[in-house]
Amino acid sequence: SIISSADKMSSVLRHCTKFTPSGFGSLLSGNCSHGRTCALQYFVSSNRYSSSKIKVDLDSSNGVAIMQFQSPPVNSLSLDFLTEFAINLEKLELDRGCRGVIITSAQPKVFSAGLDILEMYQKSPEHYTEFWKAVQEAWLKLYGSTKVTIAAINGSSPAGGCLLAMCCDYRIMADNPRYSIGLNETQLGIVAPFWFKDTMLNVVGHRETEKGLQLGLLYSTPEALKVGLVDELVPEDKVLSTATETMTKWLAIPDHARQISKSMMRKPTIDKLLANREADITNFVNFTTKDSIQKSLGVYMEMLKKRKS
Amino acid sequence: SIISSADKMSSVLRHCTKFTPSGFGSLLSGNCSHGRTCALQYFVSSNRYSSSKIKVDLDSSNGVAIMQFQSPPVNSLSLDFLTEFAINLEKLELDRGCRGVIITSAQPKVFSAGLDILEMYQKSPEHYTEFWKAVQEAWLKLYGSTKVTIAAINGSSPAGGCLLAMCCDYRIMADNPRYSIGLNETQLGIVAPFWFKDTMLNVVGHRETEKGLQLGLLYSTPEALKVGLVDELVPEDKVLSTATETMTKWLAIPDHARQISKSMMRKPTIDKLLANREADITNFVNFTTKDSIQKSLGVYMEMLKKRKS
Amino acid sequence: SIISSADKMSSVLRHCTKFTPSGFGSLLSGNCSHGRTCALQYFVSSNRYSSSKIKVDLDSSNGVAIMQFQSPPVNSLSLDFLTEFAINLEKLELDRGCRGVIITSAQPKVFSAGLDILEMYQKSPEHYTEFWKAVQEAWLKLYGSTKVTIAAINGSSPAGGCLLAMCCDYRIMADNPRYSIGLNETQLGIVAPFWFKDTMLNVVGHRETEKGLQLGLLYSTPEALKVGLVDELVPEDKVLSTATETMTKWLAIPDHARQISKSMMRKPTIDKLLANREADITNFVNFTTKDSIQKSLGVYMEMLKKRKS
Repeated sequence: SIISSADKMSSVLRHCTKFTPSGFGSLLSGNCSHGRTCALQYFVSSNRYSSSKIKVDLDSSNGVAIMQFQSPPVNSLSLDFLTEFAINLEKLELDRGCRGVIITSAQPKVFSAGLDILEMYQKSPEHYTEFWKAVQEAWLKLYGSTKVTIAAINGSSPAGGCLLAMCCDYRIMADNPRYSIGLNETQLGIVAPFWFKDTMLNVVGHRETEKGLQLGLLYSTPEALKVGLVDELVPEDKVLSTATETMTKWLAIPDHARQISKSMMRKPTIDKLLANREADITNFVNFTTKDSIQKSLGVYMEMLKKRKS
Repeated sequence: SIISSADKMSSVLRHCTKFTPSGFGSLLSGNCSHGRTCALQYFVSSNRYSSSKIKVDLDSSNGVAIMQFQSPPVNSLSLDFLTEFAINLEKLELDRGCRGVIITSAQPKVFSAGLDILEMYQKSPEHYTEFWKAVQEAWLKLYGSTKVTIAAINGSSPAGGCLLAMCCDYRIMADNPRYSIGLNETQLGIVAPFWFKDTMLNVVGHRETEKGLQLGLLYSTPEALKVGLVDELVPEDKVLSTATETMTKWLAIPDHARQISKSMMRKPTIDKLLANREADITNFVNFTTKDSIQKSLGVYMEMLKKRKS
Repeated sequence: SIISSADKMSSVLRHCTKFTPSGFGSLLSGNCSHGRTCALQYFVSSNRYSSSKIKVDLDSSNGVAIMQFQSPPVNSLSLDFLTEFAINLEKLELDRGCRGVIITSAQPKVFSAGLDILEMYQKSPEHYTEFWKAVQEAWLKLYGSTKVTIAAINGSSPAGGCLLAMCCDYRIMADNPRYSIGLNETQLGIVAPFWFKDTMLNVVGHRETEKGLQLGLLYSTPEALKVGLVDELVPEDKVLSTATETMTKWLAIPDHARQISKSMMRKPTIDKLLANREADITNFVNFTTKDSIQKSLGVYMEMLKKRKS
């Protein structure tokens, strides 16, 4: 392959000026730009894609890919991570041998700690723009995936980690009292954007979203089950096996009918971001470059450092 | 009466080129077309309407009509059934002596098996068009009824059967472990249209609808109660009496205020179909005429035949 | 202060022809009219505002205002009450020392009995117009408040009383079997307007709202908890202390992030009324001036009188 490492591939993708990300895979968009098709030819040329931050195993016998987050220590959603994630999803989307994707973590105790705050701290507006595009793209690819997507949540899942879980078709979480899940952005003084909000609203409804977002609630596992933020709690060592069993049940449904049904439910939410990507980026960059927000993030990172030592 | 049988009446209605179906009875539409008013004069001229597939008994003492589905073996929603159903609802809508309608089944074990697949198999595009118009019309009449509508679900209620139940103001189901209810279209390789989806969404919310539609879930009675797909479970021999008691409670509310409240909740959903009827028909016809879908339906019908024998 | 009583202040506000009410405080609207700014200068000039019908105590140590309804016998939402209420909320909104508002009743057994029917009975269309503007304004101010708002519901809360409670960020109700809460308008033959409906929909979802509005349901306290109409039930003597403790939890969240999150959830609902205020007023006046409605209200008031004696 002409591409030898995930970082190089990410770099190609990010710097390909013609790259225009799509919304809902082949099902919804249909109008892939030339640039995108072009960029994808690079990835498709390699038969199996292995990256440093994410490990993907596609079982050709059943069409189920297991995608493991392996970015120590806490699977933070850095620019590189998100780019790899979107590439992997795009590859699986285009792979007719793949029918379902299980997302899980290879790190102990955490599914994903959410957006990497380092990408939002003391960087240039250009960097913030690039980063936010990658966050949008990851969401578009996962929320709009035509595959069956199951989150095997084997650890805590705050903020962006919760977002990824909520994008899946089904959520199984380890019944561990130390784990929690939720969009806790306000606790850090920042705000979940409207499409994070829409994703949560589609899972737990208006009232719970309003309360959860305002308070930046991190739900314990029983609370998460009660409000419907996760579908099932199982012992920690059964998370992946339960996800596999559940996948079998979902794959019993004819793909085409299931995909149209999924699209019918999610298209309005996806279209809303697609129609407002630029404004959403501007909004993020303006917000993040504020002194007050930079200060908040600085304080938060100091706190994290002290906690570690 | 100039009309002697339900089939003739259906025929008149269906072939009256000026017939323009309405949305929300007199409450919402207001602008009845000339053709429709004309067609209705036929039906109004007969004092009591009795049809082969649906039996309607209106108790003039309390204004409650009991509408029994009596189309063996499983109350399939054929073109004739749906046309009779819409006519009956229209008649009751126009009847000032009627304040509420209880819908139930005269067949054992089944409320309604849903759309008659024979109407969707190896027929002409013209037939599919006519059939789908009748499905739309039945939904518009029931979901938009100004009367109190209660489903006395005394048997299984898959697909279109579930749709009719969901259109009512209240759902009472027989607590029988052999019965189930749900929009299970995807299990057959077909897809519930957007207004089936909207109807379910208005009953059980976004998350449950997304899961239920994708998996084509048939909910057991306790599951249906838990997710809110039905309001109440009662012993099988109490379904109709409970429906009657519940109706009394609903009729204690002044009609006008209740009707405006109902319209306020349902009008956006109804208007969405009214604004997209033609596209929805085209979509159905295109989908149904696909080789792959015809094949799926053929396989399904073979399976049903084998199961019977 | 140039303004010596609440009634005078209400009068100034109501008769200031340039007064143009706003939607979402400084957060959402931004484009305050000149007239409004002008009117507000009067109120801001008085350092602490005390009115006859509503008592407000702002604790400067924690920024929490306790707003007590003290309009005997049942805190009916009269024109004067609503005007005072909106003024108080506006003052607190503009007061940087205030971060949260707890709303409760000083009257025994009732939080608020809802809209004052006397304002809707045998009055002029001009009066109905003025009254309905005040109802709209109270809702806009409370639902759009940037402060943390908590309802300490220490008594029954029908109709407009339920509306005020539903506008808050959190609802704590006294666990007293004699108390109930709900939008029971249809029981009186009148109809909750679309923004009452939207408020309820955002709290308990579509299905419960459809049922609750049609039947004019007054929920018992356990029912209200079950459907999510209130968040918590506590013994009657713990309502206010629990509200204060809950407020502390909400105030732990940075204001700015919480406010943007709140606005994101509520802005569409607020914008809907802002875009339709005039039509909504016309609708109310036309409805209220109907003979049939006046008759219904007359019958209802006779019933209330008899009940008292």
